[in-house]
Amino acid sequence: MNETVDARIATLAKAAEQQLVYDRRDFHKHAESGWTEFRTASLIAQRLTGLGYEVLSGRDVCSPEARMGLPPEDILESHWVRAQHESADPVFLESMRGGLNGVVGILRNGVGPVVGLRFDIDALDLAESEHPSHRPTAEGFASIHENVCHACGHDGHAAIGLGIASLMSELRSEIRGTVKLIFQPAEEGVRGARSMVAAGVVDDVDLLLGHHLVTGCSVGEIFPGMGGYAATRKMDITFHGAPAHAGGSPEGGHNALLAAANAVLNLYALPRHRNGFTRVNVGKMTAGSGRNVIPSQATLVAEVRGENTELCDSMYERAVAVIESAAAMYGCTSSIRAMGGAGTADSDELLARRVQTIASRIPGITFHTMEKMGGSEDFTEMMNRVQANGGQATNIGIGADFHGTHYQDANREKVLAAHTGSYDIDEGALAFATRLMTTVVFDLMKYPKVT
Amino acid sequence: MNETVDARIATLAKAAEQQLVYDRRDFHKHAESGWTEFRTASLIAQRLTGLGYEVLSGRDVCSPEARMGLPPEDILESHWVRAQHESADPVFLESMRGGLNGVVGILRNGVGPVVGLRFDIDALDLAESEHPSHRPTAEGFASIHENVCHACGHDGHAAIGLGIASLMSELRSEIRGTVKLIFQPAEEGVRGARSMVAAGVVDDVDLLLGHHLVTGCSVGEIFPGMGGYAATRKMDITFHGAPAHAGGSPEGGHNALLAAANAVLNLYALPRHRNGFTRVNVGKMTAGSGRNVIPSQATLVAEVRGENTELCDSMYERAVAVIESAAAMYGCTSSIRAMGGAGTADSDELLARRVQTIASRIPGITFHTMEKMGGSEDFTEMMNRVQANGGQATNIGIGADFHGTHYQDANREKVLAAHTGSYDIDEGALAFATRLMTTVVFDLMKYPKVT
Amino acid sequence: MNETVDARIATLAKAAEQQLVYDRRDFHKHAESGWTEFRTASLIAQRLTGLGYEVLSGRDVCSPEARMGLPPEDILESHWVRAQHESADPVFLESMRGGLNGVVGILRNGVGPVVGLRFDIDALDLAESEHPSHRPTAEGFASIHENVCHACGHDGHAAIGLGIASLMSELRSEIRGTVKLIFQPAEEGVRGARSMVAAGVVDDVDLLLGHHLVTGCSVGEIFPGMGGYAATRKMDITFHGAPAHAGGSPEGGHNALLAAANAVLNLYALPRHRNGFTRVNVGKMTAGSGRNVIPSQATLVAEVRGENTELCDSMYERAVAVIESAAAMYGCTSSIRAMGGAGTADSDELLARRVQTIASRIPGITFHTMEKMGGSEDFTEMMNRVQANGGQATNIGIGADFHGTHYQDANREKVLAAHTGSYDIDEGALAFATRLMTTVVFDLMKYPKVT
Amino acid sequence: MNETVDARIATLAKAAEQQLVYDRRDFHKHAESGWTEFRTASLIAQRLTGLGYEVLSGRDVCSPEARMGLPPEDILESHWVRAQHESADPVFLESMRGGLNGVVGILRNGVGPVVGLRFDIDALDLAESEHPSHRPTAEGFASIHENVCHACGHDGHAAIGLGIASLMSELRSEIRGTVKLIFQPAEEGVRGARSMVAAGVVDDVDLLLGHHLVTGCSVGEIFPGMGGYAATRKMDITFHGAPAHAGGSPEGGHNALLAAANAVLNLYALPRHRNGFTRVNVGKMTAGSGRNVIPSQATLVAEVRGENTELCDSMYERAVAVIESAAAMYGCTSSIRAMGGAGTADSDELLARRVQTIASRIPGITFHTMEKMGGSEDFTEMMNRVQANGGQATNIGIGADFHGTHYQDANREKVLAAHTGSYDIDEGALAFATRLMTTVVFDLMKYPKVT
Repeated sequence: MNETVDARIATLAKAAEQQLVYDRRDFHKHAESGWTEFRTASLIAQRLTGLGYEVLSGRDVCSPEARMGLPPEDILESHWVRAQHESADPVFLESMRGGLNGVVGILRNGVGPVVGLRFDIDALDLAESEHPSHRPTAEGFASIHENVCHACGHDGHAAIGLGIASLMSELRSEIRGTVKLIFQPAEEGVRGARSMVAAGVVDDVDLLLGHHLVTGCSVGEIFPGMGGYAATRKMDITFHGAPAHAGGSPEGGHNALLAAANAVLNLYALPRHRNGFTRVNVGKMTAGSGRNVIPSQATLVAEVRGENTELCDSMYERAVAVIESAAAMYGCTSSIRAMGGAGTADSDELLARRVQTIASRIPGITFHTMEKMGGSEDFTEMMNRVQANGGQATNIGIGADFHGTHYQDANREKVLAAHTGSYDIDEGALAFATRLMTTVVFDLMKYPKVT
Repeated sequence: MNETVDARIATLAKAAEQQLVYDRRDFHKHAESGWTEFRTASLIAQRLTGLGYEVLSGRDVCSPEARMGLPPEDILESHWVRAQHESADPVFLESMRGGLNGVVGILRNGVGPVVGLRFDIDALDLAESEHPSHRPTAEGFASIHENVCHACGHDGHAAIGLGIASLMSELRSEIRGTVKLIFQPAEEGVRGARSMVAAGVVDDVDLLLGHHLVTGCSVGEIFPGMGGYAATRKMDITFHGAPAHAGGSPEGGHNALLAAANAVLNLYALPRHRNGFTRVNVGKMTAGSGRNVIPSQATLVAEVRGENTELCDSMYERAVAVIESAAAMYGCTSSIRAMGGAGTADSDELLARRVQTIASRIPGITFHTMEKMGGSEDFTEMMNRVQANGGQATNIGIGADFHGTHYQDANREKVLAAHTGSYDIDEGALAFATRLMTTVVFDLMKYPKVT
Repeated sequence: MNETVDARIATLAKAAEQQLVYDRRDFHKHAESGWTEFRTASLIAQRLTGLGYEVLSGRDVCSPEARMGLPPEDILESHWVRAQHESADPVFLESMRGGLNGVVGILRNGVGPVVGLRFDIDALDLAESEHPSHRPTAEGFASIHENVCHACGHDGHAAIGLGIASLMSELRSEIRGTVKLIFQPAEEGVRGARSMVAAGVVDDVDLLLGHHLVTGCSVGEIFPGMGGYAATRKMDITFHGAPAHAGGSPEGGHNALLAAANAVLNLYALPRHRNGFTRVNVGKMTAGSGRNVIPSQATLVAEVRGENTELCDSMYERAVAVIESAAAMYGCTSSIRAMGGAGTADSDELLARRVQTIASRIPGITFHTMEKMGGSEDFTEMMNRVQANGGQATNIGIGADFHGTHYQDANREKVLAAHTGSYDIDEGALAFATRLMTTVVFDLMKYPKVT
Repeated sequence: MNETVDARIATLAKAAEQQLVYDRRDFHKHAESGWTEFRTASLIAQRLTGLGYEVLSGRDVCSPEARMGLPPEDILESHWVRAQHESADPVFLESMRGGLNGVVGILRNGVGPVVGLRFDIDALDLAESEHPSHRPTAEGFASIHENVCHACGHDGHAAIGLGIASLMSELRSEIRGTVKLIFQPAEEGVRGARSMVAAGVVDDVDLLLGHHLVTGCSVGEIFPGMGGYAATRKMDITFHGAPAHAGGSPEGGHNALLAAANAVLNLYALPRHRNGFTRVNVGKMTAGSGRNVIPSQATLVAEVRGENTELCDSMYERAVAVIESAAAMYGCTSSIRAMGGAGTADSDELLARRVQTIASRIPGITFHTMEKMGGSEDFTEMMNRVQANGGQATNIGIGADFHGTHYQDANREKVLAAHTGSYDIDEGALAFATRLMTTVVFDLMKYPKVT
């Protein structure tokens, strides 16, 4: 009987291919970065409604206070207005005004497990390649928005989410339990997950699945349980002093630039930790107004990381002491604004093994293990909540390496790297991922259970 | 006979009043900051030509290499184009393209001393007050250029220069020698004088006169010999490193922000000097690109000062050691761009006393002495060259405190301070200064000499 | 009649010459540095007693709490014991135990002004030259105490004080008022005056005279009113952290060395002041215990100075902020111990002129004016108290340049510089100073007054 | 037959017990720290000679140039003289003068493998506990040398070395090959191994065995292959500037303290490394001379570490750039003196397994594995040389936890910690280690081979 459903899912996924590519390219063309995914999110909500899902959006799924790294209000507003002119769904758009761009689609059928799936949907603040060998450029679906593009595959994630929504809708009568499709804004900079967690979106989830398209391996290769994400806290730090004429009153004012320079040195001098790796970086500094004025303001764009949440938090606490003391040293005040943050999490081995067992029914699949991710990913915030509630979670890596022609072969790897303007994916991964994830979800919820 | 000419000059200056106010307001309305005085300078050149002066401009009076603190080329070009649409003189404009905005008008009559007069003509990069009690706003001659305004009286200096040009033209046959009217760009930031000195503009000058309208004292009060200017060197410092992913390769790259922060601390830590006051300021810092990228570039906007040229140069040399070592510390390179500079100079006592003797013939005049100016002024560059050649130089302060109504009496002093957007002058100073300076120049050159 | 007394004083001073030289050499040989002048002070007290003076010592003239820069207790004790073996006066010694080394000798005769004279008596912690051309070495009166010597003339000051004591005792019946001879410990490092001021020693003084032997001018040359001393505050700063194994627990402990290094940088970076010169120096730093231990303790030996007391205090306050913030930055605590301090003071012009008028009766005398002393001197503490009470004070410089043979002529100036181990004085200055000061004091107190 | 020899070795070891304890206590009582092991080394050489070994010492086994962290010459000399009075061997002593304290004993019998054993013999600069419950104190064999004691078990290592020498001498005829017993000075601070390696001592060694007594496990427990030592480089850094009077010439001199403070901050700010852990510590700083003198000298006692040699060297190179640049910043020079250094090394698995196989014939033995040592040990220098030459090396940990009575049970672990003054070992480990190591060495060299 499994075979039968497996085969039906395969067929459905195959049939969805064209739509998947269409959706991915539509999202790609109208790329929207963190907290401005007004068009993307409202269209997803519209589609889920059409597929019979109960749909929640805006304030119902995003806690406004828990959002981090929000763009300025005028940007939020102008992008919201822009979405209106790019065929966004007007009803859902209203609920998302000001940066409440999460969407949750719910499909229930009787009593059974609540299975959550998370899809991140934001693009990056990055100019897309205009090179003729870059496929989106060549085929006319490159981002029409200046300095924003999908260079991390979230356009694909969103399309796959809709694909799964469609397939599960077809299979609805054969499952018991609740499917929760969670479309999350602002994953880049690890800014959005915490807001949806704070809104309670995963509080009832028993089994949580994430997935990420990865380059470096091809369609058909998967990592059933990724983990070891570094914990990180991102912050914008402002020093406020007082100006004075530097030539005439060198002793006047309170030098915020000098306070900030002290903070920089001592942030880098934060001690290493015996229990694992730690990181600190001050990526940007802007300070002062005029050559002959004691600078009264300075801003640092910084982050700390740790091999685990505890190390990260320890770095953060020490950083706060450095910042506040550096300010006090020059009679300045300081303020720290949280711009992003995510803890560590590991996939549950049990769930990852179930995924592998189920997935191994798909012919030609290859499995990989990945010990440490190194980078950060705020899906960990959802994983942690589910695991704390006694549920299980896993994040699945899905190969999507693009084999099309590129600038030059020698340069290929660099050109296709995530977070560069010439990134691209193998669109074959869209149907594959849809089939894989649907197969897994169905198996987790199918009724009657056959072990 | 002196009386007769003195009286004639008084009459001529009185008659010029309306034109002086007109010119000052025209320059005020079309304020142009350093190296972009295309309209101002070309119209001055046009007028001098009309008055019978031999006129030099552009490359003939500005050494391109010796210019400091030039704006970016696109700014220079767009302001040059703008001047075309604001009735600039097309012929002289051509000579000034790219920031060669000096003008020299020469009037010769027989053999005698070469008397130079310098007028600085640039405005400041500063938004003008839009308050209804600010006279330029109330009477419609506020700057039409965004974020540029005459807040240091150079509009008046330019008008006075034209007034003197007109009067001396009338008196031409009664003098022996050469009058050289030097209109200098980019005094603010002490960027322009060196360029005109390098072009040889004051090489033949025997007696050099500068003047500056000063607030804090009224029309009729003068300082015949100002001096004690602080020496200063202004520099933009760039640190070049190499980027790296801060989380993934913390040991990679070369951290230019960290190098710059080290330079900042140690620039402020440069030792005091037993021989007099010194100053150092880092007014601005900009560094880095992204939160999680090792910053590969940093820029500091800085300056040093000294009670005299030697102290200033000593500070500069130590600053260079700090900057280069801070760069080396993190495997970065550094470059320093001279953005302005002027040495100390003192007015020649002999010439200042001659000015006072001559000026005392004008009824109701009051004289003041000023020991130290504290601030910087690049007229010193011209004074030094003339003094080095055996000539004499003096800079004359001319009271121009405005007594019109202002926002509120309590705030009056602050509102009228130089280098603020609500600065204004007593326009009565225009005719007074024209009369004063013409009387002095005539006396220095009159023929036959009557002691 | 003046002539008569002047002549008598001249004769008495001449007669005292041998004793003066003997005393100076005795003090020189038994040099004692600040707060350990047990032998010196007790012998002075003994002598004053013999001359009929009322003598106060120990706690009566030194406030224990107001002493600064005290050596460790074991040093105080061992030097006190040493004095016992070098023929110190046992009775007075008892009163001085633990560093209460001030002595005041009082001579009263009827109602009249209280005239105070201050003599500083401490040596320097410095090894004396052992070169055969150094006179104390050649003639056997070099310091017998290791690393202590009189290299600033205080041996002479003490001898002159005793000389004046002897002469005034002879003239007692001819004066009206009170003579107060104040012998002060620990002038070096400006540590002792505040303690005697706090004990009220100068509270009743109407006219206060100080004097200092100066090199660079010869016997017979004097400065009747020295002034313009820089204000200074000297401090020992300690940072307390917590140790940890640097390899095994790099994140452990609290790094006091790192906190101190931050303080050093930022102390030097304290801003200059528009109102006059300021200084800051960290002369010594000692920190840490072992190579692989996070340092838990650090000490800085530092000082600030200012052209006046206000500037000095402003520097001090900013220094405190830097120190406390640097400690807080690394979770350390800090403590600051006052090691010395003296404000600015100027000699009263009126009194200095009186001194000059009186002194000019001595044949062959030359007068000099000195505008700024630059260095510090804690006689200012006494001057300030007397001046605040409505009295007058002046400090008199007395030429004492030594013209004997020295190492080599070329090197002469350097060899004889104060605060070097080869410093020496012209002993002719002893009798001259005794005569000069006695003449002045007598004139200020003589009865009946003849103007 | 193995059994037979094994049993004979067991018997010989048993018989050696008393001598082993005597030797350990004798070395303990005459504790000598790094490069001053004159008595210890000369007596070892004397004993080896008596046992029929060919003995090399001094310059033959220590390259003078490759020694690191040598004490001052006067210390070396006074300790050398002291050894003469403590019954050192006069002949060998001569060869060791000035700190050439290595000894190598060679025993040959025919053609076969060269098996090296290394024993470190130095004590620590640390005061021994005087508590009556500390056994060496209670039983009268505590160190008679002030502030030096054996707190790391090297007294035991030396005794065991002599024990093995004695047993192997008995077994000489039954082996084929060469036994090389290497007694190394100055292991503490990883200062001595490099000097013996540079002298070629291990160049011909095929199989190299080290051992270390360890607390935390008892006699009978062993680690056949320890490894994962952190690489480290220890350095004393001196900054040389020029003095000046801080009040009178603040701009004079070159501030070495300020340069050093900059170096400190930036050493701690050296970036972390993606490839593993790194460490940096400045354990001590001493700078300057007087409060009012610009400091002309500063010294830092520092070290870097890395998870492997490459990481350590990378830290070192960056540290050098920081140090040299910090010096240049203030016109100072810097010099770095190598005070110790050792790379990473891992025991060869093959040899460790052979050791385990052989050792398992001793009844009651327990084996442990240790993945990472964390600390440093300069036996790695010898291991690396042997491994580079194609040989094999292993370092064997031997349980020696002392179970005697101590201050208080609660405190026990702390009291017995290595590198504390109350450290002690179970002397039962001496005979056990002698038996174990002899069994292993014999098996590696026995003839005829029986597999």
